[in-house]
Amino acid sequence: MPSGILPHINDPKDIRTLEVVDLIQLAQELRGFIIDIVATKEGHLGASLGVVELTIALHYVFDTPTDKLIWDVGHQAYGHKILTGRRETFNTNRQLRGISGFPKRSESPYDDFGTGHSSTSISAILGMALASQLKGEKNRQHIAVIGDASIASGMAFEGLNHAGDTNANILIILNDNAIGIDPSVGALKKYLTNVKKGTAKDENIFECLNFNYSGPMDGHDLASLINELKRLKSIEGPKLLHIITTKGKGLRKAEENQVVYHAPGKFNKETGDLLPKNSEKQPPKYQDVFGYTIVELAKKNKNIVGITPAMPTGSSLKYMMEQLPDRAFDVGIAEQHAVTMAAGMAAEGLVPFCNIYSTFLQRAYDQIIHDVALQNLPVIFCLDRAGIVGQDGATHHGIYDMAYLRCIPNLIIFAPMNEIELRDIMYTAQLGLGQPIAIRYPRGSGVILDWKRDFNKIPIGISQELKKGTKIAVLSIGHIGNMVSSLLNSLKDNSLIGHYNMRFVKPLDTVMLNKVLSTYEQVITIEDGCKIGGFGSAILEYANEIHSFVPIKIFGVEDVFIEQGTVEELQKMAKIDISTLKNYINNLLNSD
Amino acid sequence: MPSGILPHINDPKDIRTLEVVDLIQLAQELRGFIIDIVATKEGHLGASLGVVELTIALHYVFDTPTDKLIWDVGHQAYGHKILTGRRETFNTNRQLRGISGFPKRSESPYDDFGTGHSSTSISAILGMALASQLKGEKNRQHIAVIGDASIASGMAFEGLNHAGDTNANILIILNDNAIGIDPSVGALKKYLTNVKKGTAKDENIFECLNFNYSGPMDGHDLASLINELKRLKSIEGPKLLHIITTKGKGLRKAEENQVVYHAPGKFNKETGDLLPKNSEKQPPKYQDVFGYTIVELAKKNKNIVGITPAMPTGSSLKYMMEQLPDRAFDVGIAEQHAVTMAAGMAAEGLVPFCNIYSTFLQRAYDQIIHDVALQNLPVIFCLDRAGIVGQDGATHHGIYDMAYLRCIPNLIIFAPMNEIELRDIMYTAQLGLGQPIAIRYPRGSGVILDWKRDFNKIPIGISQELKKGTKIAVLSIGHIGNMVSSLLNSLKDNSLIGHYNMRFVKPLDTVMLNKVLSTYEQVITIEDGCKIGGFGSAILEYANEIHSFVPIKIFGVEDVFIEQGTVEELQKMAKIDISTLKNYINNLLNSD
Repeated sequence: MPSGILPHINDPKDIRTLEVVDLIQLAQELRGFIIDIVATKEGHLGASLGVVELTIALHYVFDTPTDKLIWDVGHQAYGHKILTGRRETFNTNRQLRGISGFPKRSESPYDDFGTGHSSTSISAILGMALASQLKGEKNRQHIAVIGDASIASGMAFEGLNHAGDTNANILIILNDNAIGIDPSVGALKKYLTNVKKGTAKDENIFECLNFNYSGPMDGHDLASLINELKRLKSIEGPKLLHIITTKGKGLRKAEENQVVYHAPGKFNKETGDLLPKNSEKQPPKYQDVFGYTIVELAKKNKNIVGITPAMPTGSSLKYMMEQLPDRAFDVGIAEQHAVTMAAGMAAEGLVPFCNIYSTFLQRAYDQIIHDVALQNLPVIFCLDRAGIVGQDGATHHGIYDMAYLRCIPNLIIFAPMNEIELRDIMYTAQLGLGQPIAIRYPRGSGVILDWKRDFNKIPIGISQELKKGTKIAVLSIGHIGNMVSSLLNSLKDNSLIGHYNMRFVKPLDTVMLNKVLSTYEQVITIEDGCKIGGFGSAILEYANEIHSFVPIKIFGVEDVFIEQGTVEELQKMAKIDISTLKNYINNLLNSD
Repeated sequence: MPSGILPHINDPKDIRTLEVVDLIQLAQELRGFIIDIVATKEGHLGASLGVVELTIALHYVFDTPTDKLIWDVGHQAYGHKILTGRRETFNTNRQLRGISGFPKRSESPYDDFGTGHSSTSISAILGMALASQLKGEKNRQHIAVIGDASIASGMAFEGLNHAGDTNANILIILNDNAIGIDPSVGALKKYLTNVKKGTAKDENIFECLNFNYSGPMDGHDLASLINELKRLKSIEGPKLLHIITTKGKGLRKAEENQVVYHAPGKFNKETGDLLPKNSEKQPPKYQDVFGYTIVELAKKNKNIVGITPAMPTGSSLKYMMEQLPDRAFDVGIAEQHAVTMAAGMAAEGLVPFCNIYSTFLQRAYDQIIHDVALQNLPVIFCLDRAGIVGQDGATHHGIYDMAYLRCIPNLIIFAPMNEIELRDIMYTAQLGLGQPIAIRYPRGSGVILDWKRDFNKIPIGISQELKKGTKIAVLSIGHIGNMVSSLLNSLKDNSLIGHYNMRFVKPLDTVMLNKVLSTYEQVITIEDGCKIGGFGSAILEYANEIHSFVPIKIFGVEDVFIEQGTVEELQKMAKIDISTLKNYINNLLNSD
């Protein structure tokens, strides 16, 4: 039998038999276990280390899974997973067919609500608490754990505003570590800092919203935490407990450099030192091409501003924030606000680059339509993490953007095939298009080592004939076009096959399409996005409009949610990979 | 020359020459003018009557349009329009080619930012104020007027949270009348009530967010209002002025019945009495079919709950709120929260009907994907006001829903052709589908007098052959199918033409489609929604998948924003009207 306490915890029931002194020991072991696995398997480190004591205290005091527990965002739920029957499978975290990096209903009865995007937990737990009330379950407890960055998002406020007007039995635990992925921002963050320092005035903002507020208290003091949770368990109605924690707690380097250790990659589990990465010269990440290029452009065009909703590091807008701090804005987890503020700036003649991950832009869909496109304001949207993103999985793939943006009038949609095209479209957009544009590019690296070249203007709606053919035309959009090029280069005889880098999902290059549709016998479209309503559909709609009857085969993500894995694994599963395309083309060629 | 002051106000400059006593006279005239016109031309009454004094005070104290002024939502901006050069055209309000019922940038230099959907003003004005700061315009003022219902929406909080962390020169005027369209709800509303009564504690919630707060003050006391605005003009940084007003002020009936007089239709301008409506028996409004049917179903199925974000009257959920108050929830202007709360309820076995106008569902797009569909939770979305809505215009048409929902896995999309189908699909959905469904239906009335019939289950994904034909098949989705039926009935010989009520946008009835695509020579699709990515595209995608080469003609709204007018006028402009369809069919028949 392995030594220690953790190996014997297969269920939260096992925790409830322990003494507090054992729980403190368990906390130490749990922290070590998380560090051990994440050091080699990678994943999100800092958030889970910060809530080790809270996790144990919650499962100790409350009767999970009868009592409901939701982890907002879910980066911090590793300890929860390990203590609720997933210790043995935790080393498959974020891998194909492994456990999810986020809470997931289908994975465990202890995961009461799937998370991934921030600030959903208050609404969800309130829904559950109101359901309990209607069902007459008087003693069931409902807990949501939410960070100080997430609670500042509008959706969380909507939940608080409603919850405070009910007598629902909910406990919101505000896990205040003053950081999301990057340090928290905003007036509420400043206010919470004053609360912690004791310099805020008497009334509390959460009390204004009719919550029973307690705290702030040390979230690493396990014994006190347990006592306070026990006390709150007996209080009815909406309650908020404010705890102070340290992100990365227990690993010195992670505490000292919280942004890097949010998801540090592989590291030495003893020292915390990051393991050296491949030192060969690699093409840059697309995010860095964005980050360096906006600085370069902004130095020449004084009207350029940059906006990110809480992703300075992930978007690489941090370079602009360092060099041109007055003109680069981290607005917090506030996609809706980011987009409409950008519209306000564009209305006054600024040139806003609004950088939002594709999956998070879903949060600001109405604002794109109502505030930007309807008024035809020339906001430049940069959609990072477009397409399949890999290990973050189903909650984070940016595969719907082409479908949901394509129906919006006035909006240009562009997808660069490489770093040069990303730079050139950014250059082109800031010259002034007179209308908004969305530029989508993937997570990860480009393909060109020598990427920092002179800018060239890209004519709007013009595609690129990369290779002429006679029989089969492959129309690709964005980065996935490199895969098509590789394939064609690998074929012994590729003379029958043409390749077109379409670049614009909207407006389509109809001149080129007319030529393609009247020249080739078969058209293939390929996109790193959903098939329904996406790029392939755009081609189909146009072909239908001009009464073309050339067969069109669409490669894109089918109508199912895609789970986690490496990008390569998932593209293969989604059948938008090189071998699927190769087989299809070979079959076409051999069918003659 | 006409008597009085108002006829001489052609520009806010004219106001600035007046004495306060004249301004009070002007307020009276402006109120009368609004009542006179709205009494006969219809429109939004109560909100504008409530801000007559504020409107005059703002244009008197501030240097509009150099100083920027944004009216949140915009229902209350009639006075603003009349005083800023649109007095003579105000009688064209909300009509085709008339002035818009909302502020609109292209209409006037005094409309600094178009509104329509709520809670955008703080973000937009902050963007403008930050732009001013960067441009070194030190004295320019930036004002947003926002109601107490709108400020409680998450997006507004995001704006406040960012603004409070800047030194931007903005003034938020909280127009607190305790009502949106329906009475305001939520913890913040209760808090504001305490502030008004003087029973709130010392610190103010807006001060917590680092705003310079003043008020509450009487928003109808013009002289005091002017003094306070002058004082605030000289204070730098973010400020919030809390004023108390009465919606409908100055027309007794409108003050007494604020919900009805939000947009009362025609009324007697002296007495306020509503003019009698056509007393002939009419088919019911779709919203009432929803409202009565959910009560009927909920009385039998105790798990049914109803949710509306601030539209109890507009959605007719008010009937359930009256009869089953514990199970019907008005969550305020909080679409994001509404959807995720519904997901939480569904996770606990309730059967939530979440009723949101199609255009407002754009606000909760991410929540539909991330919280509902990804977890496959059986939330029943009822999308009222789907399609072209008429006089509310471009901000409010619900024409994108089929395109933006179609790409979401697990989601069923249904559009009833009439009241019976709406009732039957609601009945079917609450029996338990094991997955979410979106039911879209239009603004206005159905077609059946005797609509309250026994329920029948609708098989999922099954369409209806309304009429067999041989040559041309018309596939319609939803209510617009009635227009197709009328057309076919009006033709002397319609034997060549088949008509299919497809009912499901997703899943498509592929059995029926196989038959149609293999039988007919020409397919026509028609939808009250955008062409790009919509219902017609779904048919096209399927036809392409099965290698059908039957010509498909898609009727839908082209890729431009549609302005205001009657539904009939706009459908004609959008070419989804009966005569366009008739001409097309006749041409086809004559081309043989």
